[in-house]
Amino acid sequence: MDTRSLSQHISHEYNQELEAVRSQLLSMGGLVEQQINQALQALVEGDSQLAETVVQTDDRVNQMEITIDEECSRILARRQPAASDLRLVIAIIKASTDLERMGDEAQKIGHLAVSLAGQDRPSGGYREIDQLGQAVQAMVRSALDAFARLEVDTALRIIREDKLINREYEAIARQCIDYMMEDPHRVRRVLDSMWAARSLERIGDHAKNLCEYVIYLVHGKDVRHGNLDAAERELLQQ
Amino acid sequence: MDTRSLSQHISHEYNQELEAVRSQLLSMGGLVEQQINQALQALVEGDSQLAETVVQTDDRVNQMEITIDEECSRILARRQPAASDLRLVIAIIKASTDLERMGDEAQKIGHLAVSLAGQDRPSGGYREIDQLGQAVQAMVRSALDAFARLEVDTALRIIREDKLINREYEAIARQCIDYMMEDPHRVRRVLDSMWAARSLERIGDHAKNLCEYVIYLVHGKDVRHGNLDAAERELLQQ
Repeated sequence: MDTRSLSQHISHEYNQELEAVRSQLLSMGGLVEQQINQALQALVEGDSQLAETVVQTDDRVNQMEITIDEECSRILARRQPAASDLRLVIAIIKASTDLERMGDEAQKIGHLAVSLAGQDRPSGGYREIDQLGQAVQAMVRSALDAFARLEVDTALRIIREDKLINREYEAIARQCIDYMMEDPHRVRRVLDSMWAARSLERIGDHAKNLCEYVIYLVHGKDVRHGNLDAAERELLQQ
Repeated sequence: MDTRSLSQHISHEYNQELEAVRSQLLSMGGLVEQQINQALQALVEGDSQLAETVVQTDDRVNQMEITIDEECSRILARRQPAASDLRLVIAIIKASTDLERMGDEAQKIGHLAVSLAGQDRPSGGYREIDQLGQAVQAMVRSALDAFARLEVDTALRIIREDKLINREYEAIARQCIDYMMEDPHRVRRVLDSMWAARSLERIGDHAKNLCEYVIYLVHGKDVRHGNLDAAERELLQQ
């Protein structure tokens, strides 16, 4: 094998490794997405068996995080990636942590769904939480799409949407406080609902983080904690 | 300059860079520790001015996370670290995220302290939260010490302690539910206290994460999500 074909061979293997870990992250994302959807369904429909499945899925999600992190460390050590390859590996390390935390929140919703299934059902069902959950699900799906396709526009949109999710959660929390004051016997149930809404809101935060990594990946720009308007103007000028 | 002194020179610079980013992380840790201590003091003493200081400190913490991440990316790109140096850089990237989230929780406690300062004070003060907070403060301090001195024994101890913190938080949460059911007019105040206890519990989780990175750093072993007893036996045999 001459030097040129050897280096092509190595670079082909290297690309395959990068592609493999990227695709592992997206599989992990798919599993977490399913976990969130099932957690919401279990809560809204009072399905404690489905809720148990959600709780148990968490082990697999945790294991995926460890595998992905190990693979990223191996690539950093052996391939010494630079520029956009390096940003990809760093983004994957960070994203795997966020996905794992999203899985934790889905697991919490699973536990709450089990607890709520054993209590009286509110007359209106869990309409507000269901609506919030649908919005968060859509946000997670778009964030994973943005990561898969490196779509900065989608990422910027989702980062903005997170503010709406936070506002919707706060409205639910305020309503819950009113309910508890009106009828102290419902405190346990209302509080469980409120924790579930809180977990959904946190899942939204993590989806937002994923989108921030997409922008970092594509533009090498860290838009966390910053003025998004200024960053967006700058990105559009590029 | 001959080759040998050049390579020594480069390696000296490289070590300085690693040391600089490690020390930046520890400074960030020191700032977050102070933020947590002040948040707890503000809450317990009803000092809303101190609470505002805590809230405002968050910008500095966020900025430190970005700076540390940038420096780690630069080191990965230019120095292509291997083995324990690589683990150090990865551990610092992960730890900066946890410290930033600890800062977020301290900021939340700051907001809650402002809200609580405007309400009636409970007759017993905030004794339980203060106790939980003291335990979490000690845990954070030890976790940062373990990181600074690469002490695996301390790290293992703190990881175990987190279970006690979680149990203490759950006891407070149960008590809060009883209070709310007994006196619905206190719902807002009791809920604010409960959120503060929850934030302290989460700070404990992040301190535990820092300790897991210490073990990864020293032994190259990922003890997250795993059976700690088995990992500990294995580490002791090394």
